[in-house]
Amino acid sequence: MRKVFQAELHQIGEELTQISELVTEAMQKATAAFEGADTELAQDVIAADARIDFLQNDLDERAIDVLALQGPVASDLRMIVGSLRMSASLERMGDLARHIAQLARLRYPEHVVPEPMVETFSEMARLDIRISELLSELLETRNLELSNDIYACNNRINELHAGVFKAIASPEWNVSAVSTVDLTLASRYFERFADHGVSVTRKVNYLVTGEWQPMSESSR
Amino acid sequence: MRKVFQAELHQIGEELTQISELVTEAMQKATAAFEGADTELAQDVIAADARIDFLQNDLDERAIDVLALQGPVASDLRMIVGSLRMSASLERMGDLARHIAQLARLRYPEHVVPEPMVETFSEMARLDIRISELLSELLETRNLELSNDIYACNNRINELHAGVFKAIASPEWNVSAVSTVDLTLASRYFERFADHGVSVTRKVNYLVTGEWQPMSESSR
Repeated sequence: MRKVFQAELHQIGEELTQISELVTEAMQKATAAFEGADTELAQDVIAADARIDFLQNDLDERAIDVLALQGPVASDLRMIVGSLRMSASLERMGDLARHIAQLARLRYPEHVVPEPMVETFSEMARLDIRISELLSELLETRNLELSNDIYACNNRINELHAGVFKAIASPEWNVSAVSTVDLTLASRYFERFADHGVSVTRKVNYLVTGEWQPMSESSR
Repeated sequence: MRKVFQAELHQIGEELTQISELVTEAMQKATAAFEGADTELAQDVIAADARIDFLQNDLDERAIDVLALQGPVASDLRMIVGSLRMSASLERMGDLARHIAQLARLRYPEHVVPEPMVETFSEMARLDIRISELLSELLETRNLELSNDIYACNNRINELHAGVFKAIASPEWNVSAVSTVDLTLASRYFERFADHGVSVTRKVNYLVTGEWQPMSESSR
């Protein structure tokens, strides 16, 4: 019985990592579509999101089965409940990658980001991809030292996100209202993606150490 | 044992309703602060959000205790896991009310919404409050007939949300870039609030009937 249980727990962990890897792929393609105004790539991301949703559902059903059949307690129980929370965050990260791809598709053949903001959004994209990659590694290895890199990426994204609003508020801002809306939403999507990444990171830390880390106000 | 268990389940249900009522209050005050440029009321909402976060955490701990001590199966197990999901959605709704209050505080003594858009945002606010009220009633009574009213409010909010972007894209739009950003974010907060309300509604329906209702694309 114990052996079956450990195999089930292992399987849930594997599936979390697998979802995280699909989220990374989605964000890589979404940001490439976003930066390159590539509607086919955007379409790929939108279509592939169903796979993430399916895997989340599958993981959740598996977790509920384990709860019903094995009646786990203590840290095993917390690990399974934590997996349900983490899968929800990862699924949401997939949605946000899809939203970025949808913006790219909506504006095709135009680029979403006007020239003066290209570098800002490109850095946000790189940071989100990095967070997602680190998350897969964290989920697989439980090496908590990776967490600080994730928090650092998130802090930088929060700075960039604030910088977008500062740029929009400056007297030199001469971008159309529609484009201003696009940039506002895109910036928010990138920021939310990182924020969910931080949630998962904090959850992994909690499951490994049994203690919650204090959360900075900026990561809310 | 069974009696204790039923009492625990009941308590979890009560706590969900209580959180939902606090969310309604938060949204009522947040939208009043938003529409009336009332910074004190906004501050109330921001401070009160900690109470919602606390109750969510308390509910989650209680649910995990029940899982550990009672080892529920079948529909009881799904009800408890469902409660964890619903509490997360309600907590997020509280955050969104807080974000609306924060926008009001940020722009004080100015109003966030310029004259031509007042009616649109006021309708969104009323619909979100209505969704939240219906949700409390649904959680308390499990009367699934309330669901269609919630879906109808959500559909109307989606129309209004699309209408905001249409207005911004029109050649007559002559609102500042900063204000355009505020309206984009506010509209998204109202839309997300309703969307989380729909998630909770669908979850209650699933727990009562055992079947998922098909989801329209617009509610994603």
